[in-house]
Amino acid sequence: MKEQEFLTELKEMDMLQQALGILEWDTQTGMPEEASDYRGEVSSYLYGQYFAKKVGPKMTEAIDYFSQHPKELSEVGKAALSLVKEEYDREQAVPNALMVEYSKATSDAHHAWQKARKEKDFSLFQEALQENIRLTKELISYWKKEEKTDYDVLLNIYEPNMTTEVLDDVFSTVREGIIALRQKIVEEGVNPRTDFLNRKMSESQQRQFIIKVVQDLGFDLNRGRVDDTTHPFATGINHRDVRLTNRWNETDLTMGIMGLIHEAGHGVYEQNIAEKFENTPVHEGASMGIHESQSLFNELVIASRKSFWQRQYPYLQECAQGTFDDISFEDFYASLKQTQASLIRIEADSLTYILHIIIRYEIEKMIFNEEVAVEELPRIWNDKYEKYLGIRPKDDLEGILQDVHWSAAEFGYFPSYALGYMYACQLYYAMKKDIDVDEVLSSQDYTPIRQWLTQNIHQYGASKKPYQLIYDATGEKLNPQYLLDYLQEIYFAVYQINE
Amino acid sequence: MKEQEFLTELKEMDMLQQALGILEWDTQTGMPEEASDYRGEVSSYLYGQYFAKKVGPKMTEAIDYFSQHPKELSEVGKAALSLVKEEYDREQAVPNALMVEYSKATSDAHHAWQKARKEKDFSLFQEALQENIRLTKELISYWKKEEKTDYDVLLNIYEPNMTTEVLDDVFSTVREGIIALRQKIVEEGVNPRTDFLNRKMSESQQRQFIIKVVQDLGFDLNRGRVDDTTHPFATGINHRDVRLTNRWNETDLTMGIMGLIHEAGHGVYEQNIAEKFENTPVHEGASMGIHESQSLFNELVIASRKSFWQRQYPYLQECAQGTFDDISFEDFYASLKQTQASLIRIEADSLTYILHIIIRYEIEKMIFNEEVAVEELPRIWNDKYEKYLGIRPKDDLEGILQDVHWSAAEFGYFPSYALGYMYACQLYYAMKKDIDVDEVLSSQDYTPIRQWLTQNIHQYGASKKPYQLIYDATGEKLNPQYLLDYLQEIYFAVYQINE
Repeated sequence: MKEQEFLTELKEMDMLQQALGILEWDTQTGMPEEASDYRGEVSSYLYGQYFAKKVGPKMTEAIDYFSQHPKELSEVGKAALSLVKEEYDREQAVPNALMVEYSKATSDAHHAWQKARKEKDFSLFQEALQENIRLTKELISYWKKEEKTDYDVLLNIYEPNMTTEVLDDVFSTVREGIIALRQKIVEEGVNPRTDFLNRKMSESQQRQFIIKVVQDLGFDLNRGRVDDTTHPFATGINHRDVRLTNRWNETDLTMGIMGLIHEAGHGVYEQNIAEKFENTPVHEGASMGIHESQSLFNELVIASRKSFWQRQYPYLQECAQGTFDDISFEDFYASLKQTQASLIRIEADSLTYILHIIIRYEIEKMIFNEEVAVEELPRIWNDKYEKYLGIRPKDDLEGILQDVHWSAAEFGYFPSYALGYMYACQLYYAMKKDIDVDEVLSSQDYTPIRQWLTQNIHQYGASKKPYQLIYDATGEKLNPQYLLDYLQEIYFAVYQINE
Repeated sequence: MKEQEFLTELKEMDMLQQALGILEWDTQTGMPEEASDYRGEVSSYLYGQYFAKKVGPKMTEAIDYFSQHPKELSEVGKAALSLVKEEYDREQAVPNALMVEYSKATSDAHHAWQKARKEKDFSLFQEALQENIRLTKELISYWKKEEKTDYDVLLNIYEPNMTTEVLDDVFSTVREGIIALRQKIVEEGVNPRTDFLNRKMSESQQRQFIIKVVQDLGFDLNRGRVDDTTHPFATGINHRDVRLTNRWNETDLTMGIMGLIHEAGHGVYEQNIAEKFENTPVHEGASMGIHESQSLFNELVIASRKSFWQRQYPYLQECAQGTFDDISFEDFYASLKQTQASLIRIEADSLTYILHIIIRYEIEKMIFNEEVAVEELPRIWNDKYEKYLGIRPKDDLEGILQDVHWSAAEFGYFPSYALGYMYACQLYYAMKKDIDVDEVLSSQDYTPIRQWLTQNIHQYGASKKPYQLIYDATGEKLNPQYLLDYLQEIYFAVYQINE
């Protein structure tokens, strides 16, 4: 077999994915709702073609041949083969009947979850969740190789080489650290003024402001676009067509502004993966955690810095046409970094967010590594919220039913968000050794920041594993202390705590 | 072979077409321009799959089998087989590689056309156009059967059974008729007041007005949407997802308003083809000419009637928030039907429009039936405008670069617009026998008009040929006199000419 034949097969798979990407983007941004059955059929059909290739005879042949003749592959071919083989091995291990059962179960579970949310009653979701867990455990039995625990198998899917051993350690440091920071803030902090944050800023005023900001942050609108949706996301169709989506709240400008700053981080990543990887599975993010590190670099690192807002606030005032003219920069900046325990993960602030993730991680670990009855989960969930955040959900909707992930059997995904937080801060401290970040953020040109990220992260796509990327970029392995240091720097300043 | 197997193959082809439809819509409405190469590849790939099925072994088998066992097919299967067979016969001889080349060439040509427009320079488009012509001539060599001329082959694609023989005859009647009408208007007519038409009406004001109007005209927004584009079109992805596109001019409200009224006619057609035909090639318009008859029924017939505007004008005044409060209904209505020679087809009024078509028809006939060098076309174009309309384009943008069609190699398409004019008027006089059209247009409910069109035209999709549809709906074959009668009725009234 020639390498070109292998690359052509990959390209055909990629073209199917590009089409599927546009269909999904369209479904989320404006397809007439009544057309959803037709759209479902079309997407299933194209996905079926994609999947048939993924485990098809040509892929089998390529893996067999090039595993024995690795020297016949270019750098790109080598990186692609390695990724393809991982997924192929995982797919091939599982009997087709189980995948069919799994697909049916997750579809049923999604409906049960929606119903349970309507009734705010976990018991209506319990049976379907139990089934998702049972089938996932069965999948693990086929997938498991040298991983130490069952849950490690799931972590691995979203973050290669990640283990509960590492996460237990890291999360306990982070948990204790954040709880200590919060205690100090509650006891000694001066609360920022936030009363003006719900002043009306129209959608088009917000849009005018934030579209300029994401361009400053390196998002190239000649190779991308921004649309409205219910659940914001970013999607890289190819590196010249990267789409961000956003939602707006005219009386809560932080939703739309922080939302798009976050998605732009994903978008800039997708726009700057090296072109040579295009049309192969290497032209993707290295992992969910690394992808989140880029969105959170924007949202947590950049958008927490005074230097950033000092430059951007006058333009925000201009776009708001007088609405914030009486609000000083100091007051505006501080309002963005208020922190408060809350029940809903996606509404949490950047100090408390990671506690939401740790709760989910701990529960998922219990589900897969220990014995826990599904009916106990709501109590466990609520107890953990009370213990870590000091508040208790009053019903399952604001508790265990809030996330879609378990209905889709996406166990092991949540830790990626937390990894993103830690990677983002670790990258920031490494970047500071090369660049005066605040000086750049005070200037008219943020390019040096984007370039540093492209050079150290973006360009590699999925050709390096997460731990390697982070090690090469920062000179050390995952170190949660950077997150704690960063959070302390930002929040203590805002809450006027002198250390 | 079982009918179900045949229908499943058709459904897969339809699903590919739905995906291609969304990709094309996306290309025209907002895809980042830099992504066009990638998009071209993806569309070519999916089109290649579609085409491979169209002339593939399963289709061959179905055509062979059911041609011999027609009684084993349902009504839908029968109608589908007949359409499939026609295209199969035409295209089976065409090599797949040629179609892929053609698809890529038209994608490239579209961008060359856009670039040429920006520079107002035909020479930047010339090479791509030459390539489109070359490939089309190559296709004709595969398609030609008993057609008398090469151009007849192209006419046939858009309007089955149409010939240059018929069109030469019909167009000469229409051309003479319109020239006579125009002469009378110029000599005896009282020009309507039009000075207020360029008063500013914002895009959002226009949108508010016209979105309600197209819903009145039967366009269902629960099964459709409206987007912005450079060159307006309508596309039916399926009957629950029909998309109109429009462009706006804040100081010429007629552009956006008449444009969307036109596209809505296409859209209502697509939304009302009988559901039983879905997922087969019967679920399409009967021909381009019939499709245009529906858009022009809206634009030419409905939107020329005083009764229609009498009801809609107060709402337009409301949406314009005072801008037209000092303009009487009589003045407003008359201004819409001013007629004047102009250079841009899509801005032409309904009296002169057809002369623009006749020019294109004559040039296309030259390209395919005679010898003409591509570089001569701008001069030929300009000469014909001077001869028929008395005006000469000052550059290629307002001349030969104005239409998208040739960039898409859609030669033979233009006459459809003229057929649409003639069919629309012929249908109107037939409808009048069943319905008091002006009474309906004066009421709050236009449903009877939409229903008459659905019953006589829409529902049949492509299950009837154009000439059969027109004959069944009106009791006679194509008769250009109805168009001339209608134009005379409308324009003589506006220009105060007593016949």
